[in-house]
Amino acid sequence: MEDARYMKQALAAARASAAFGDVPVGAVIVDRVASRILAVAGNRVEQDRDPTAHAELLAIRMAARELSVARLSHCDLYVTLEPCAMCAQAIAFARITRLFFGAYDPKGGGVEHGARIFSQPTCNHVPDVVGGLEEGECARLLREFFAGLR
Amino acid sequence: MEDARYMKQALAAARASAAFGDVPVGAVIVDRVASRILAVAGNRVEQDRDPTAHAELLAIRMAARELSVARLSHCDLYVTLEPCAMCAQAIAFARITRLFFGAYDPKGGGVEHGARIFSQPTCNHVPDVVGGLEEGECARLLREFFAGLR
Repeated sequence: MEDARYMKQALAAARASAAFGDVPVGAVIVDRVASRILAVAGNRVEQDRDPTAHAELLAIRMAARELSVARLSHCDLYVTLEPCAMCAQAIAFARITRLFFGAYDPKGGGVEHGARIFSQPTCNHVPDVVGGLEEGECARLLREFFAGLR
Repeated sequence: MEDARYMKQALAAARASAAFGDVPVGAVIVDRVASRILAVAGNRVEQDRDPTAHAELLAIRMAARELSVARLSHCDLYVTLEPCAMCAQAIAFARITRLFFGAYDPKGGGVEHGARIFSQPTCNHVPDVVGGLEEGECARLLREFFAGLR
C-alpha cells in the first residue's frame, strides 16, 4: 500500500515532466528509517538541456544534498520506468537499499535488460529490486506521451 | 600531440580532486569544430557529497550548459580513467564523438570491462574509443593516491 503511494507520487512528477516536453519519468526517494520523502524529481533532459538529468539521477543528487552524505543507505527509490544503465549504476554508487520500478524498458533499461548493471560481477552494491509496481499506469503514461508525438 | 595536451589538462583536474580527498580522476570536453575547451572537471564525490559527481558527468553537464544543448555532437571527451557504466552511458546519451581515456579500470570500468556499455546492442550511440592515452601518468596518480590511503 505504502509502496503504491510512493509510486503515485513518482507518477505525478512524471506527468509534470511531460508538460515540459520531457519523456514522462518520475522518481521518489524515501528515507526508510525516518519514513520521510527526501526527493521527488521528474526527467528534465529537454527542460534543462542536460543529457544526465534523468529523474533518478536528479533525485539521488537531491537526497544526498538533503542528508549531506554521498551514500543513501537506508533509502529506497521509486521510479516509474526501469532505470537505464547510467541511473542503475548511480543507484549502486548511492547504496540504495530497495529499487521499485513501474514499467519495464526492453530498449533503454539497464536493470532487467541491456547492461543488466546489478548482474555484473564487478557491481559494487546490489539493491533489492521490485519491477512492475503500478506497471499499468506507468506504461500507459509513456505510451500516451509517445502516441502524442507521432 | 593535441590529444596528449588535453589529457594533461584532465590530469591537472585529477590532481586537484586528490587534494580534497577524492579519487584523482579528471575530465576535459573539447568542441572539435571550434577547437575550444568547453569543460574541465575533477571527481567531486566526497567534496560535494554527491555519488553522481564523477568527473565525466560533471564535465558533460558543464559543457551542455555552456552550449545550451542536451547533445554534445562534435565534442570529444578526455578522462584520466576508463569511465564507469554510469559515465559511459552518460557519454552515449550526450552523443560524444570520441572518448579518450588514460588508465584501464578492470574493477570499476564500464567500457572495456564490466557492463561494456558501448558493446550492448541496445546502446543508443557508440563513440570512437581510444584507451591508454598517457596511461602511465594517469595510472601512477591513482596508484600514489591509494598507496597514501593505506
